[in-house]
Amino acid sequence: MKGSLHVDEVAVDELGDVFNSDCPVRTVLSHVAGRWGVLVLASLDEGELRFFELRDRIGGISEKMLSQTLRTLVRDGLLERTVEHSAPPKVSYRLTQLGEDLTEPLLHLLERIRLRTADVIDAQRAHDRQTTADA
Amino acid sequence: MKGSLHVDEVAVDELGDVFNSDCPVRTVLSHVAGRWGVLVLASLDEGELRFFELRDRIGGISEKMLSQTLRTLVRDGLLERTVEHSAPPKVSYRLTQLGEDLTEPLLHLLERIRLRTADVIDAQRAHDRQTTADA
Repeated sequence: MKGSLHVDEVAVDELGDVFNSDCPVRTVLSHVAGRWGVLVLASLDEGELRFFELRDRIGGISEKMLSQTLRTLVRDGLLERTVEHSAPPKVSYRLTQLGEDLTEPLLHLLERIRLRTADVIDAQRAHDRQTTADA
Repeated sequence: MKGSLHVDEVAVDELGDVFNSDCPVRTVLSHVAGRWGVLVLASLDEGELRFFELRDRIGGISEKMLSQTLRTLVRDGLLERTVEHSAPPKVSYRLTQLGEDLTEPLLHLLERIRLRTADVIDAQRAHDRQTTADA
């Protein structure tokens, strides 16, 4: 089951029970767009990486948080973990087809945010000036 | 400054310093794709809503969390808050142009996740069976 690559308009009603607090879509969203999940998926979009390469690439992540994020995304079927039996063993991660399918719209969102972050910062400054003026 | 509506392929390099832990893109992402931000934005994509309408629509949100989420998104310039001076005053929220611009790819991501959530759940079950078998 694969979604169309370009959804031109998404009706909110189609999102079904995402507004229900038990909806599993919310859980998957939290894994994919969570603080570290998004950076792991974006890193692996360029191809397979080893654990330490991910650690070095993602600023501020601890080994513990990286392990935990990788475990979650492997369990979700978004990443494949391979172990090469050398000494020391080489552990690598790459996106599965399912992982690629979710990373694609995630990168579009990130790119849009990147394009508009300066506008958000301007809005925050204007808001804070107004709030100070009102005080 | 408005991004193209359809980015066919996003190069990860274009995401700039998102891998840096101080990157403001990460902060905006956390507001937009955070647990409650995403549901507030998705709700308002259909049009203006009043505070209690948002509260009733979004399962599991407390009034405190809703207020806090709305305050953050207003400060970011994604929502506009209007107060109608009646008794009691009517407080409404709607997306700004900037808010619409970030909500559009967010809804595409949500829709893609919705399409693939059954596959994620299947992957989790297969993973858990394997883990149990290995134990």
